[in-house]
Amino acid sequence: MAHEKRAIQCDRALTSVFTLLGKRWTGMIIGVLLEQPARFAQLGRAIPGLTESMLSTRLAELQEAHLVEREVLEGPPLATVYRLTPRGEALRPALQELGAWAEAHLLQSSERTGR
Amino acid sequence: MAHEKRAIQCDRALTSVFTLLGKRWTGMIIGVLLEQPARFAQLGRAIPGLTESMLSTRLAELQEAHLVEREVLEGPPLATVYRLTPRGEALRPALQELGAWAEAHLLQSSERTGR
Repeated sequence: MAHEKRAIQCDRALTSVFTLLGKRWTGMIIGVLLEQPARFAQLGRAIPGLTESMLSTRLAELQEAHLVEREVLEGPPLATVYRLTPRGEALRPALQELGAWAEAHLLQSSERTGR
Repeated sequence: MAHEKRAIQCDRALTSVFTLLGKRWTGMIIGVLLEQPARFAQLGRAIPGLTESMLSTRLAELQEAHLVEREVLEGPPLATVYRLTPRGEALRPALQELGAWAEAHLLQSSERTGR
């Protein structure tokens, strides 16, 4: 049983990606922004349970990581939207794979068990 | 600006997947188990910063969600390993996409900026 002796390590790339996505709400916010740019209030309504203060924190983190940018649209009325940067947009194939996995493995079984 | 009026919603599949993966450490634990089955202590050592009690909580959640199973290997000495179920193993393509994204967008830029 070689695997008992050898030290194993979490992959560096996955560590970095889950330092971001392993925070509650972050993946869902990116998922909503993959659909379309959205205003703060729209994002809040799109994700049940997400408070304004947590949304604000998560958007700041995503801007810091250059995944999301804030854009002021010329008015009137003035409006501010959040949109994915190219770096954030590049998560689309991975999130599509995650969504496909959930469709096949989580949603179907939860329908079967009625949960 | 149609997107200002229309209510948007987080995709149901992504909501379900990030209810799991949006918890700290969960994605990294799955990433390690995608490499090979591992004993509790190996998992703990593979992920710096992960405490035993948090690892224990996360493994219980992953077993509850039928992504991970615990197997007792015949001895001597007896050993217990955690391994992915087929449902957990099915996350491989999505985690590979996430890893590829991180290689291209997180690790390279952190090397450039020295962070």
